[in-house]
Amino acid sequence: MARIGIDIGGTFLKAGVVTDDGRVLASASLPTGAGRPADAIIADIAAVARKAAESAGLPMTEIELVGAGCPGTCDRQTGTVEYANNLDFVNVPLGKELSRLLALPVYVENDANVAVLAEHVAGAARGADDCVCVTLGTGVGAGVMVGGRLLTGCNASGGELGHMVICEGGEPCTCGRNGCWESYASVTALIRQTRAAMQAHPDSLLWQQASSLDRVDGRTPFEAMQQGDPVAAAVIEQYLRYVAAGIVNVINIFQPEVLCIGGAISRQGDTLLDPIRRQVVQERYSRYADRQTRLCVAELGNLAGIVGAAFLDRF
Amino acid sequence: MARIGIDIGGTFLKAGVVTDDGRVLASASLPTGAGRPADAIIADIAAVARKAAESAGLPMTEIELVGAGCPGTCDRQTGTVEYANNLDFVNVPLGKELSRLLALPVYVENDANVAVLAEHVAGAARGADDCVCVTLGTGVGAGVMVGGRLLTGCNASGGELGHMVICEGGEPCTCGRNGCWESYASVTALIRQTRAAMQAHPDSLLWQQASSLDRVDGRTPFEAMQQGDPVAAAVIEQYLRYVAAGIVNVINIFQPEVLCIGGAISRQGDTLLDPIRRQVVQERYSRYADRQTRLCVAELGNLAGIVGAAFLDRF
Repeated sequence: MARIGIDIGGTFLKAGVVTDDGRVLASASLPTGAGRPADAIIADIAAVARKAAESAGLPMTEIELVGAGCPGTCDRQTGTVEYANNLDFVNVPLGKELSRLLALPVYVENDANVAVLAEHVAGAARGADDCVCVTLGTGVGAGVMVGGRLLTGCNASGGELGHMVICEGGEPCTCGRNGCWESYASVTALIRQTRAAMQAHPDSLLWQQASSLDRVDGRTPFEAMQQGDPVAAAVIEQYLRYVAAGIVNVINIFQPEVLCIGGAISRQGDTLLDPIRRQVVQERYSRYADRQTRLCVAELGNLAGIVGAAFLDRF
Repeated sequence: MARIGIDIGGTFLKAGVVTDDGRVLASASLPTGAGRPADAIIADIAAVARKAAESAGLPMTEIELVGAGCPGTCDRQTGTVEYANNLDFVNVPLGKELSRLLALPVYVENDANVAVLAEHVAGAARGADDCVCVTLGTGVGAGVMVGGRLLTGCNASGGELGHMVICEGGEPCTCGRNGCWESYASVTALIRQTRAAMQAHPDSLLWQQASSLDRVDGRTPFEAMQQGDPVAAAVIEQYLRYVAAGIVNVINIFQPEVLCIGGAISRQGDTLLDPIRRQVVQERYSRYADRQTRLCVAELGNLAGIVGAAFLDRF
């Protein structure tokens, strides 16, 4: 028997057929068409699941269960998406509907929680019952496992590490607070920081990487730094200081066995990790402990949503 | 049968005989004499336990087990205190030695973790499997329960919420970082903030509450505020903003059922809680959730160390 994992994103719906040991046999995708009525989106989620099974050459009767990772607040017990801003979902009975359409058991969970499950089952945190996965993307997402269980809190909204203030009274965050980690450590924040540096330094090589402020993306400052631009190097240094401030907080709070960083920026590998590791060693509260958190890059990349969702029945 | 809980403090060793439902039958105390060799302190810990049993009129054969809460990093499995700064303990086999001296099973745990157990068993967080207890004292201590288990991390150093940076690059903290919650929300921090306001405002009523900077304590600004001093009111307002910033962080991270605040400052009751509650409602990430964290004052006060330690066998 195999299982299907579904990654419900703001842009694409992706489904994959996954074996019991975490290999993806085949996958499929469809545009999300966010903003459409929930029913129409759910019909396409069922369609993409069937398409994935077809690609794998398996009839749906060979599929044991379906798991779906969805942005926003999801109630595991009922399978309801209580609130998902970028899908315009409020109290949508996703699990129930999908289960009816596919005639299979369906599990629903927040997408950041799904990402940490993926790393726990088949990625960087294999075998680590205490682990955290932080995703540096448009925002800062996070999933936390404590003692082999997902941290969800009393209302399924737990684990929002990105909305931990690290600079009290600082930059405004989309959540309404000021100074959240997300507003300093997301790719969106890095782009903002890069643009500010470009405006202050008209001679910087950053202007050769991105001919206008509109063209700046998360790679721009890393590429300019590699070409020797000191302005870009300063942007990255400060950005990583913010990333590390939150990482040290997370370590002091959870002391996980493994903390992995995912999202587009994690492709920078040791350029990203080395400065963070130095700050962690300098600042962690547990400096006298024999066991220390292993900091690494998430392994599953774009497959995390599919693989983690496929194993929601186990957690 | 009854149990003995021991609260190992930097100044006093306190022991209490506790019933199975959390009532303290009798207690006893001795000076800690910190700085003495560990053996001498452990002998006195055994002595204070015997003294408590005697006060309760119970022979030691009527005692089922002993639990001890100790500052610093404690390994639950081995009963070893790995590091306790203010006792000058490094790898002290407290559990083993105490068990030998008293001929009873002994459980050892960090004192902030013990405090949350006390509230969970017999205080403000009764029945709440997800709960946090934050103690605003000389430092900011914290104990966290997730799914009915203590959060200790992979190395027994987890749950150090006081060493979460809330003001990146801010005030130096005793842990070596800059801008930790502890360096803004502890009583020590409030005293520092009060002294700074006194120096800036020689006419403030604060000078009547404390005739010199040396005499400022945690009550000084609250008392001057109650007498109508606007300078004291501004100190308290800013202090509570820092406290609340960390509290909202803790809620966004854990979404506990109950978050209780202990320590000397918690005696201020609603003067403390009301402004924090307002900020929580305004800033929490879970504003759409039906269930929200209940914020309250810890109930067990000075007994928390004894009561929580007495139930270490259950967690």
